[in-house]
Amino acid sequence: MNVSELAKAVKSGDRRALARAITLVESAREDHRASANALLTGLRADAGGQGKEALRIGLSGTPGVGKSTFIENFGMRLTAAGLRVAVLAVDPSSTRSGGSILGDKTRMEKLSREPLAFIRPSPSQTRLGGVARRTRDVVALCEAAGFDVVLIETVGVGQSETMVAGMSDLFVLLMAPGGGDELQGVKRGIMEMADIILVNKADGDLRAAATRTAADYAGALRLLRRRPQDPEGFPKALMISALNDDGLGQAWDEMQALATWRHDNGHWQGRRAAQARAWFEDEVRQGLLAQLTSSEKIRRKLDDLGQEVAEGQRSAPDAAAEILSDLADP
Amino acid sequence: MNVSELAKAVKSGDRRALARAITLVESAREDHRASANALLTGLRADAGGQGKEALRIGLSGTPGVGKSTFIENFGMRLTAAGLRVAVLAVDPSSTRSGGSILGDKTRMEKLSREPLAFIRPSPSQTRLGGVARRTRDVVALCEAAGFDVVLIETVGVGQSETMVAGMSDLFVLLMAPGGGDELQGVKRGIMEMADIILVNKADGDLRAAATRTAADYAGALRLLRRRPQDPEGFPKALMISALNDDGLGQAWDEMQALATWRHDNGHWQGRRAAQARAWFEDEVRQGLLAQLTSSEKIRRKLDDLGQEVAEGQRSAPDAAAEILSDLADP
Repeated sequence: MNVSELAKAVKSGDRRALARAITLVESAREDHRASANALLTGLRADAGGQGKEALRIGLSGTPGVGKSTFIENFGMRLTAAGLRVAVLAVDPSSTRSGGSILGDKTRMEKLSREPLAFIRPSPSQTRLGGVARRTRDVVALCEAAGFDVVLIETVGVGQSETMVAGMSDLFVLLMAPGGGDELQGVKRGIMEMADIILVNKADGDLRAAATRTAADYAGALRLLRRRPQDPEGFPKALMISALNDDGLGQAWDEMQALATWRHDNGHWQGRRAAQARAWFEDEVRQGLLAQLTSSEKIRRKLDDLGQEVAEGQRSAPDAAAEILSDLADP
Repeated sequence: MNVSELAKAVKSGDRRALARAITLVESAREDHRASANALLTGLRADAGGQGKEALRIGLSGTPGVGKSTFIENFGMRLTAAGLRVAVLAVDPSSTRSGGSILGDKTRMEKLSREPLAFIRPSPSQTRLGGVARRTRDVVALCEAAGFDVVLIETVGVGQSETMVAGMSDLFVLLMAPGGGDELQGVKRGIMEMADIILVNKADGDLRAAATRTAADYAGALRLLRRRPQDPEGFPKALMISALNDDGLGQAWDEMQALATWRHDNGHWQGRRAAQARAWFEDEVRQGLLAQLTSSEKIRRKLDDLGQEVAEGQRSAPDAAAEILSDLADP
C-alpha cells in the first residue's frame, strides 16, 4: 500500500490502516519520516486544508488517581452516544520498546472492545521533544480519520502536561481526594493549565474527603486570574466517581459547554491557529537544537563543559562560546 | 582604564568602576561583549573561581503592589545592619532607551542616597533572552564587587519571573490584599516559584483584607507538594506593611532561615551549580537560535510560513523542513 492508498484507507475509517499509519508516523527512520510527512500533507490536502475537527481533550493526573477507570467509563459514555473516540497515551518516562499494547488494552478492557473506540498505547521514546512531535502527528491522523473526540492522556510529570495542553482544545486534570496538605502531590503550575479539575473517588470512604477537596480547589481556582479564553465559572472543579460512573455525564456537559463557548467566542480557532504556529516554531527550534545531540563528540563536549561550569571552573558565556564555534566550524 | 584595571577597581568596591563595568556588560556591541567576557573571566580568576557569595533574592509583584516601597524600607534595614545591597531591576516590557536612572532613583529616594546601597535601573531591551544574559552578568559583577545582598526585582509578567527565579537563591513574591477572587491577578504558575509570599499593605483599611489574603495563600501553599529544597513550613505566606516598615524584619529573618537551611542541607550549592549549568546550556541554545533572527530574510520567511501554518495552508513539519534546509544551505 503506497502513501496515497494509505491516506485513502485512513480517511475511510479503516482501523488497520490507521494503526499502520500511526506506526509509520511514530517511526524514527528517515525514510519513514518522509512518508509520514507525505501522508499528513496528503490528508490535509484531501480535506481542503481543514477537515472535520475533533474535540481534543488533554487529560492528566498522577499515577493511581484513576485515569484508566475514568477513560474506560467516560469513553463508553461517548461511544454509547455514537461518538468515535481515540485514546492516545503519552508517557515520556516510559522506556518500553514499541509500546505495551497489552498493558493499555487491559487497563481499558470494555472500551478496547468498542467498535467506535481506538486505543493507542504510548510510543516508546526517551526525548520529550520526540514524543511531542509524534503525538501531534497522531492527533492529526486521528482527526483526519474522522474521530469525534481525541483523548490525550498523560501522567503528571510537569513538562508532558504542558506539551499535552499545547495540543488540546481543553485540558482536564484528574485529582485524588486529599487527606489534606502535601499528600495531594499537585505539581505547581499544573492548575495554571487546567480548564476542568475532576476530583475522583467520590465514593465509599473517600466521599467526604472528595467533597472537601473539590471545595478547596474551587476556592483556589477563584483566587487565580480569569483567563480570556474562559467563560464565567471556568476553570471549574467538580467531584466524580469514575468507578461508579458518577458525575461523568456532568463532566462531559461541562466540557461541551466550554468547547461551545470557545467556538462561539473565537477562542477555539484562535487556539488552534496559535497551536499550529507554535508547533511550526517548535519544529524549527528542535531542528536547530538537534545539532547538539546529533554527534557523540558534541554531546561529550557539552557534558564536559557543563560540568566545568557547574563546578565553577569556567564561566557560562565562555564555555558556550567554545561550543558554538565548534558547531559553526566543525 | 583597561579590563584588568577595571576588574581591580570593581573588586576594591569603587562604585563608579562598577557602574562602568555594568555599562560594558549591558552593551550589545561585539567588541564590548568580548571585553565584558574578559572582565567576568578575570573577576572569576581573581576570586579563585569562587569568590564571596552574595545572597541573591528574586523579587516579583504586579505593578502597584508596593515593590518600590518594599525595596526602599527593606534595603534601608539591611544597610542599617551594615550589609551592602545591590538592587537590579528587570523590566522586559520596558522600551526605554538607556534605562531611566532618574525613575529608579526617585522611586527609592532614601536607599539611593545610602552609601552601602547600589541601585541599577533596568537595561533597555526588547528580547527577554538578552535581558537574562545581561542580568546574570550584572549579578555576577555585583557579587564580585562584594555586595552582601543582590535584590533582583521584576514586574509580574510570567517569563521574566521564571528567569529571575533561575538566577536567585530565593524567590519572594509580593502580593496585594485581595478584595477577593479574580481581582488578585495572580499569574498562575508563579506560586510554583515562590519561596516566600509577602502580602503587603497590611495597614489602615486593608489590614483585615491582608490578614485574610495571607491566610488564603498559606492555605493554598499547603495544598501544594513540598519541594526537596524546602524546610518544614516553606514556602511561607506572611503579611507585611512596607509603608509602615512592619513585618520586614520577620521577612528578613525568614529569608535568612531559609538560606541557612539550604546552605546546611546542600541545596544552596546544588542550586547554584544547576543554575550555572542551565545558564551555560541556555547560552548555547540562544547562540544557535540566534540564526533565526540574525537575517532579515530568515525573519521574514519564518513569519510568512508561520502565517501559512496558522491559517491551515501548510503543515507545521513541512514548513519547518523548508526553513531548516534554508539555514543549513544559505
